Formats: sequence, structure tokens, C-alpha cells
Amino acid sequence: MSLPDPLLIRNVRPLGRAPVDLLLRDGRIAAIGSALEAPQERIDIEDGGGALLLPGLVEGHTHLDKTLWGMAWYRNEVGTRLVDKIDNERAFREASGHDAAGQSLALARAFLVRGTTRLRTHVDIDTQAGLRHLEGVARTREAMQALQQIQIVAFPQSGLLQRPGTAALLEQAMGAGADLLGGLDPCAIDGDPVRSLDTLFGIAERRGCGLDIHLHEPGAMGAFSLGLIMDRIAALGMQGKVAISHGFCLGDLPPAERDPLIARMAQLGMVLITSAPPSRSVPPLLACRQAGLTVLGGNDGIRDTWSPYGNPDMLERAMLIGLRYNLRRDDELDVALDCVTHAGARGCGFEAYGLAPGDRADLVLVDAQTVAEAIVARPPRRLVVAGGRICARNGSLI
Amino acid sequence: MSLPDPLLIRNVRPLGRAPVDLLLRDGRIAAIGSALEAPQERIDIEDGGGALLLPGLVEGHTHLDKTLWGMAWYRNEVGTRLVDKIDNERAFREASGHDAAGQSLALARAFLVRGTTRLRTHVDIDTQAGLRHLEGVARTREAMQALQQIQIVAFPQSGLLQRPGTAALLEQAMGAGADLLGGLDPCAIDGDPVRSLDTLFGIAERRGCGLDIHLHEPGAMGAFSLGLIMDRIAALGMQGKVAISHGFCLGDLPPAERDPLIARMAQLGMVLITSAPPSRSVPPLLACRQAGLTVLGGNDGIRDTWSPYGNPDMLERAMLIGLRYNLRRDDELDVALDCVTHAGARGCGFEAYGLAPGDRADLVLVDAQTVAEAIVARPPRRLVVAGGRICARNGSLI
Repeated sequence: MSLPDPLLIRNVRPLGRAPVDLLLRDGRIAAIGSALEAPQERIDIEDGGGALLLPGLVEGHTHLDKTLWGMAWYRNEVGTRLVDKIDNERAFREASGHDAAGQSLALARAFLVRGTTRLRTHVDIDTQAGLRHLEGVARTREAMQALQQIQIVAFPQSGLLQRPGTAALLEQAMGAGADLLGGLDPCAIDGDPVRSLDTLFGIAERRGCGLDIHLHEPGAMGAFSLGLIMDRIAALGMQGKVAISHGFCLGDLPPAERDPLIARMAQLGMVLITSAPPSRSVPPLLACRQAGLTVLGGNDGIRDTWSPYGNPDMLERAMLIGLRYNLRRDDELDVALDCVTHAGARGCGFEAYGLAPGDRADLVLVDAQTVAEAIVARPPRRLVVAGGRICARNGSLI
Repeated sequence: MSLPDPLLIRNVRPLGRAPVDLLLRDGRIAAIGSALEAPQERIDIEDGGGALLLPGLVEGHTHLDKTLWGMAWYRNEVGTRLVDKIDNERAFREASGHDAAGQSLALARAFLVRGTTRLRTHVDIDTQAGLRHLEGVARTREAMQALQQIQIVAFPQSGLLQRPGTAALLEQAMGAGADLLGGLDPCAIDGDPVRSLDTLFGIAERRGCGLDIHLHEPGAMGAFSLGLIMDRIAALGMQGKVAISHGFCLGDLPPAERDPLIARMAQLGMVLITSAPPSRSVPPLLACRQAGLTVLGGNDGIRDTWSPYGNPDMLERAMLIGLRYNLRRDDELDVALDCVTHAGARGCGFEAYGLAPGDRADLVLVDAQTVAEAIVARPPRRLVVAGGRICARNGSLI
């Protein structure tokens, strides 16, 4: 795709501050200031109407391949245990021939129209589906690449050890387009944490890739697994390359046990990714941030066989983060926004992110007085600009 | 206001079931069935387009008088303690001359356009504002009465004992248009639970009114207050007349202590009202229902000096209830809907509620395949009918 034409956006308020104009050129923010002159060349001018300006939103944890977005309603009659949901999903896919390419594209576009321009998704790798989901989501990544950056995590949803052959498939996935390697509950699902983590880190070491590990395990069990993970990061020199998704155990433990774990995570440059579920223990957001840990937000799955919830609107996720952590003050809601913007980009390693000259021109305009209002009211996006191109207006893709 | 003209609504799916037609006459549902004949008289016919039909939604706990809905954004810089929020609000009102009449009307209309046709609101009664908030919200109740039933609870937000004169004002409020008497944390706020509750129940006894008591007190303290409340209900024969709002303590206690309290509440015909806050302990919804207790949902305050959150969309509240209680199966989401429909009406004592002939014609049409989809997607209301009149279409009041 050719570079976009230059674009001048007038009268927008970055994060609610005083109005400015932005000049976009070659897909980047070229200048930001008041009453910018249009350059000599013919240029498109967009009136921002005093809207609130946010950087493109960041989804840090979703499962594009699983979603039933836009399909006939799936009646959820699934059992309550984690394995019930895993087994049910495999059976559903086998029966339905689930189309991971088409579904992931539908959801990625639904994210874009709501202002998400960077996104990390896990894709299931298992001995039944093989690399089919990776291939499907990789097609979506390619289709979206001018507008939306998609990172793919190869994720052993059915466990790494439980179904022989999974580790080899994961290793294959890392050579077939996955950006990161995923993991899952080495005690609770794999039942052999040392062998599970040695296998996982072995692949990461050979492939030189980062890790994003689902850790649902509660309390002491989760803390134990987290300790094993951190031992391996230190031993292999993988500082700055490992994310923990969920980390519910950090919400269960008393501060005296929890805080040293958080301090060690920060020291190892780890990242914590939360969906802030209202029904589970969650890591202490503000304590983690104070310890220097990057904490970012994600939906987890969206309308799939696991759960009917989730919404490709990261402002709604920011609201749920705010509600879960009882963030009521405007300065606290800035933290909720950070989880789906700057902290999200930093934690996932998305580059050239932000609202400064030189950053990739990913912009969201919202009719809201303040950041806090944008989060609680979640109005339709007045304008979404991705890579310097206007791609959505008032809730419709262009 | 005169009685509405008859109306025939064709092709709607009550709670997702097979399509039917509804004939509305004199503000009631006159008939429901397939391929209903239009009566001889000239009649308006509305095509439901196969939409999901819900009964008018019910808000069981809000504070219409407090809201800043539609106003310039209020920057929240309030402290974290309950008393910080109480004191801040009184100071804000004193300085701003807050208009409870205008604000409550704006929010009541915002509820109506999203399908809420019955609503219970608390109004602050204190020695600073006197009965001003009651008078303002009573004006809103009158303005809305053909379309929306509003119950008013006279609520001692600043405590019943702390500020001398409050009890007399509450008693006055009961003669000046309040429907129910409210209470608040007899230990934590009033500091003298026996005298506080004796005073409160004394007013209720003299006035013959029902009670709706805010009980935020956690754990053992809340259980203690709840016990004192139940003693008085039994002694005064006030079975079936008392609601507890919040009841966080029931979410703190172990089942062995909690379950006998819940059983006694059910035996006394009490009602439990929850906003299902993600950041607090909450009463166990399903265990309460199994014990025979009516549990209903409410927003609590909406965009006020307490909190920027809340939304006059009771489908969103149902979603938050579903998320808080991890209700994922479709049959579980029926429970979330019940909290903002039938259980809401039953718990508040709203009469002629439902989708059967003879019920008040309060109807909501939503473009959704199932109840679960209506809750998680919360689409704009295609049509809202209140008291037999079409009052909103596609998100706009008519």
C-alpha cells in the first residue's frame, strides 16, 4: 500500500488538554501545535471540532481466533471448570469447522472501528487444530497491516504436556509467523510444572522469542509457578521478554508474600496483563505500578464458547478496569486509560507509539470533555486514524 | 393525561421465544398471541420486526437527586473514606446550588429512553438541604407519571443521629411525598446502632411505611447491624416491608455464618438490592435466590460527586451483575435479566408488571437474538412503550 496523503487535523484536545492541530505525513505525526500552517502542497484538512484526542487504543490480550463475533448466537451450556471450557471448545470447533481467518478478521475490524490500532492476540495451537488458527489469524494480520498492528502469540490452550506433539507444534508455530510463545498453568493444567516450563523456555531460547504466559493458578500454587518462571528468566537472561497474563494469584496473597514477587517481576522487566475480571482476584494494579511493573489491559476472549462477554471497545475495558480497582478520581482514571494506551504499547513492545512528532499517526477522536468522561461514557469514535489514514468515522469503517 | 390509543405490535419475540403479536389497550396488555386480528376500531400498528421483547426495565436503587448527568464534567478529587464523600457532596451542593429537580428529570428521561419504566430512587434528606431534594424529585415523579413509575425513598445520607434534626426531617418527608423510609449504616455512620435503628423503625411504625436501608458495613459489623434490623422487623410485624441495599457483609462472611442470616432474611420477606460492584464483596446472588430471597439490581449513583460511573441502561447493569457473579451460561444470564425486570418489580412492589394480559403495557424492543445477547451487546432500544404509549424509538425520546 502506498503512503497516505498528508493530513492536517485542526482543533483537537490531546488527553483533554488545550486545543492543538496535528500535521500527519507519511503515516507519522509530523507536527503538533496551535494554528499549524497547511504546507504548500494540496492537503486534506479535517476539523476535529474540539474533540478529545487519544492515541490509538491498545488491546493487550485477546483471542481473535476463538470469537463468534457476528455469528448466530452460541447458547452457552458449558460446565464451570477450566477443563470443561477447554474440552467444550475443542469439540465445538471439530463439529463446526470454525473459521479462524474470517472470524478474526471480523473482530479485528470491530476493534479498529472503535479505535484499537495495536493488538496482541493469542491463537490456539493444539494437536487437533494444528497450526490452522495461526494461519487464519496471520491472514488477518496481513490484511490489516497498513492500519492495525497485530502481534500473535502461539498458545497451547489444551496444555503443553497433556497432548503429546503440542510442543513440536508450538516450535513449528514460531517458525510459521507467530511473534511470541504462549504458556498456560504449568501446575493446574500440565501437572508437571518443571517439565512444562523447561519445555516452554527451551523453545523460547532456541527461537529467541518473548513469552506471554496465561497464569490462572490461584494463591500459593500460582506463586509457586511464578517463582519457577522467574528462576528461568534469570537463568536464561530473558529479562524484559516475559509477560504474565491474568496472574490471579497476586490478588490472593497477603501483601507480605505478594510484594516480594511483584518486586522481583519488576526487576526482571516482566509485564502483567489483566482483564480485571469482576469475579476473580486480581493483581493489585496501583501497587504493581508503584513497584515499577508495567500493567496493561485486555479483554481476554470476546463472545466465544468460553464467555458471552467482552467488547472490542478498549474504552469499555478501561471502564471495567476502573470499576474493578475502584478508580473514581480523575487522576485514577488516567491510570485506567494508561492500561489501554501507553502501558499497553510499552508492555507489548509496540513502537513509535504516542502523540508526539515522529510517532505513528494512530489517533482516536472522541466527543468527551475529559479522559474520565471518555471512559465512563464510551461514545462512538468520531474519527479513527491509523497509520495516517482516516479509517473510521462515527462508528463506521471507511 | 388521557388514555393512550390502542396499539397492535406485530412480530416480537418475548424473551427470545417464538414471535407473537401484542394488542395494547387503555395502557395495558389486552391480548398476546400469534396473528392477532386488529379490532374494528382504527388502530395504530407497529411492526416489531422480530425484535426481542422485554418487559420495561426496573431500576431498584439509584440517586436521581445527586446526578450531574449532562452537566459540565465534575473533576473528582475526593478522598477514599465514606465520610469524605458525604462531606464533599454536602459542600459541593452548598457551593453549586445543585438543582435536584432538573437533574433528576434529565436522568429519569435518560432511563426511559433506554427502557426503564419503573424506578426506585433515594433522595437525600439532611439538615442542610432539608426537603429540597425530595421536592425536586417529586416534581420529576409527577412529570413522568404517565410513562415511568418512580418510588422515592427519604434517605438520611449524612446519618440519622449525627446531625440533630434529621429524624424530624425524615418524618416530615414521609408526610411530604416520600414512599419509603431510608436508613444508613447504624454502626459505622451513626455510631449508636440501637438508638439509630429504634429511631428509624419508630418513624416507619408511626408512618406505616416500608424501609430500604443502605448497609455498607462489612463482615461482622454488618452482620451485627443486620441482626438488629431483623429483630425489629420481627418485633414490629414488618415482614415483607424491608429492603437491604448493598449488604456487603453477606459477601464477607463464611457460608456457615452467612447462610443463617440469609435464611432469616427470606423468612422475614426481606429484599436485597445490589449494584454488584466489581471492587467490593457482594452477597451471593444464587445462594440468596435459592434461599427464597428476592434479589434485584440497581446502579447506585450515576455520575455524581461520589463516582463517575453508572449508566441509566439497566441492560448494562445486568451485564455488570453477570460479570460480577461470573454468569456465563444463557440460563444464568436469564437470572441477570430477572434482577432488572421481574425480581426488580416484585422487590420494589411495582404492580401489574410483566408480559401477560392485564399487565401495564411497559415494553422494550431490542434487536438481539437472545436475552443473553441483549445483555452483553446492549443495543439501542428499537422501541420503548410505557403505559401503552410509544415513548422512544432507536434511542431518542418521542
